[in-house]
Amino acid sequence: MKKLINKTDDVVRESLEGIAAAHPDLVRVSYEPYYIVRADAPKQGKVGIVSGGGSGHEPMHGGFVGMGMLDAACPGEVFTSPTPDQMLEATKAVNGGAGVLHIVKNYTGDVMNFEMAAELARGEGAEVEAVVIDDDVAVQDSLYTAGRRGVGTTVLAEKICGAAAEEGQSLQQVAELCRKVNANGRSMGMALTSCIVPAAGTPTFELGDDEMEIGIGIHGEPGRERRKLAPAADIVETLTVAVVEDIPFEQGDQVLAFVNGMGGTPLIELYIVYNELRKLLDGRGITIARNLIGPYITSLEMAGTSITLLRLDDELTRLWDAPVKTPALRWGA
Amino acid sequence: MKKLINKTDDVVRESLEGIAAAHPDLVRVSYEPYYIVRADAPKQGKVGIVSGGGSGHEPMHGGFVGMGMLDAACPGEVFTSPTPDQMLEATKAVNGGAGVLHIVKNYTGDVMNFEMAAELARGEGAEVEAVVIDDDVAVQDSLYTAGRRGVGTTVLAEKICGAAAEEGQSLQQVAELCRKVNANGRSMGMALTSCIVPAAGTPTFELGDDEMEIGIGIHGEPGRERRKLAPAADIVETLTVAVVEDIPFEQGDQVLAFVNGMGGTPLIELYIVYNELRKLLDGRGITIARNLIGPYITSLEMAGTSITLLRLDDELTRLWDAPVKTPALRWGA
Repeated sequence: MKKLINKTDDVVRESLEGIAAAHPDLVRVSYEPYYIVRADAPKQGKVGIVSGGGSGHEPMHGGFVGMGMLDAACPGEVFTSPTPDQMLEATKAVNGGAGVLHIVKNYTGDVMNFEMAAELARGEGAEVEAVVIDDDVAVQDSLYTAGRRGVGTTVLAEKICGAAAEEGQSLQQVAELCRKVNANGRSMGMALTSCIVPAAGTPTFELGDDEMEIGIGIHGEPGRERRKLAPAADIVETLTVAVVEDIPFEQGDQVLAFVNGMGGTPLIELYIVYNELRKLLDGRGITIARNLIGPYITSLEMAGTSITLLRLDDELTRLWDAPVKTPALRWGA
Repeated sequence: MKKLINKTDDVVRESLEGIAAAHPDLVRVSYEPYYIVRADAPKQGKVGIVSGGGSGHEPMHGGFVGMGMLDAACPGEVFTSPTPDQMLEATKAVNGGAGVLHIVKNYTGDVMNFEMAAELARGEGAEVEAVVIDDDVAVQDSLYTAGRRGVGTTVLAEKICGAAAEEGQSLQQVAELCRKVNANGRSMGMALTSCIVPAAGTPTFELGDDEMEIGIGIHGEPGRERRKLAPAADIVETLTVAVVEDIPFEQGDQVLAFVNGMGGTPLIELYIVYNELRKLLDGRGITIARNLIGPYITSLEMAGTSITLLRLDDELTRLWDAPVKTPALRWGA
């Protein structure tokens, strides 16, 4: 295992210390229990937005805490759900009286623990809504999930709902918006290499030198099939067809195209992926109105990519364009 | 070789097509010869800034073209210097009558070709200055370089000089500023794994499962020494001591700390590196006033990191903070 870490038990805590030290203008970090919160939380009268999940997917979620996106993020140990305690404390820390939205990726542990935290928070008088993101078209059920997994659309939902909360929308409005983003977003990923969980020390799965996994999960869960390596054009076609034909996206649609790096894939390759994607969508009469290209929902050092398409309307486009100021996403501020 | 590419000969062109398609609001791309230029170039009365070098280091340089940073970038083939022809055409494309600064990393081919391009451009009536960046403390001479290599400080020089040009400083002022950044910036890197040049198809160098290379170059050039793997704290101490003691940086200094990812290292590890770095600098009484953390000058899919420190004063801090709007760096706009 080759990683820039100290003790495997300290990976999450030390990375949180790094975030806290690097971005004191944007975030504060609680260590007991772990959560990352906006430096200016709670914002009175604003809906608070909390997300979270296992670590190892950085910058998601902690890198998205700040103006116009998340109010707090709860990091679990690597690929391990955070605890209800973390979620409860984060919820209380961001509740400015207008209620709190939990954005939850569909993994059994995350969903269960966020449900428990919401119950506990409601018991303490907070208004809490939760929306589960389940956008991965690769498989119906998976290693850690009943139903579809939550992946790339989560990033887009956090940005768009964060903008809505920032402009003063109500908890019901922001939750409804989050459901709309989930309903209009679809993703699929693939891996060229495995990730290595620090505490395990060995690859999560084995792939031959001439093999790739199509439909991979962000924890290395099995996808649809293992195939021989292929040119980027073929890989992108496989992912794109699966994503496009699921909703389906149709001629005339305007979309946000998100080409994500899994952590070990350099940017030069992601632009080649984007180039193939835009040609395929051009051919189907689907217009890319916005894009996001880079490693935003990763799987440690896994090499690979995922493609997320979100069908846009004027409301989603406007909220996507709104200013955001977080460690990992920033524009207009 | 596991990469998201099509034909190895097409990697650079197709990634340029991807950039052009993704960011038409920010940049245009010329394909004969290759260069990436601001969508609104030339800016009349503004000093133009051109950089360039081999591809494989993305987002450097093409991802830094835009308001407040570069006016143009010339990408060579992977790890291969761009040609004088590219640099000449880019220079002419951004010359708004106030002259053009070439920011050149110290690699023999880059320096020679930029010199030739500057001569040709001057012959056509353009005023051209060049500054060579040579900030890598690892080795005195290297595989492709007489003197020190140019690495991370290049990114900082491009941002800071871009801001100065944006506010209307003269060519002489911007060139002098660039020399000042180079004089106050130092870097050193290390690798856990090798990169693979697409046209070669095999790792540039061999490293054992328990080895790392300290002082690596961004093309995989040999560094100071090969060592057994070590905890992040030890690695960061080695890099930091070498960087700090070179100028030297001293108690009371304010610095910009840039923790760079080499392409295959995920963000969670870079924050652990940053955490070690800030503890070491704290111990020496050196204050991190600004930071940049992420993969900005990469070496394809190499796993590893580099640390750059830039001594700040009020002028450099103000120019660093100025708005920038490029594909890879964006704030305040």
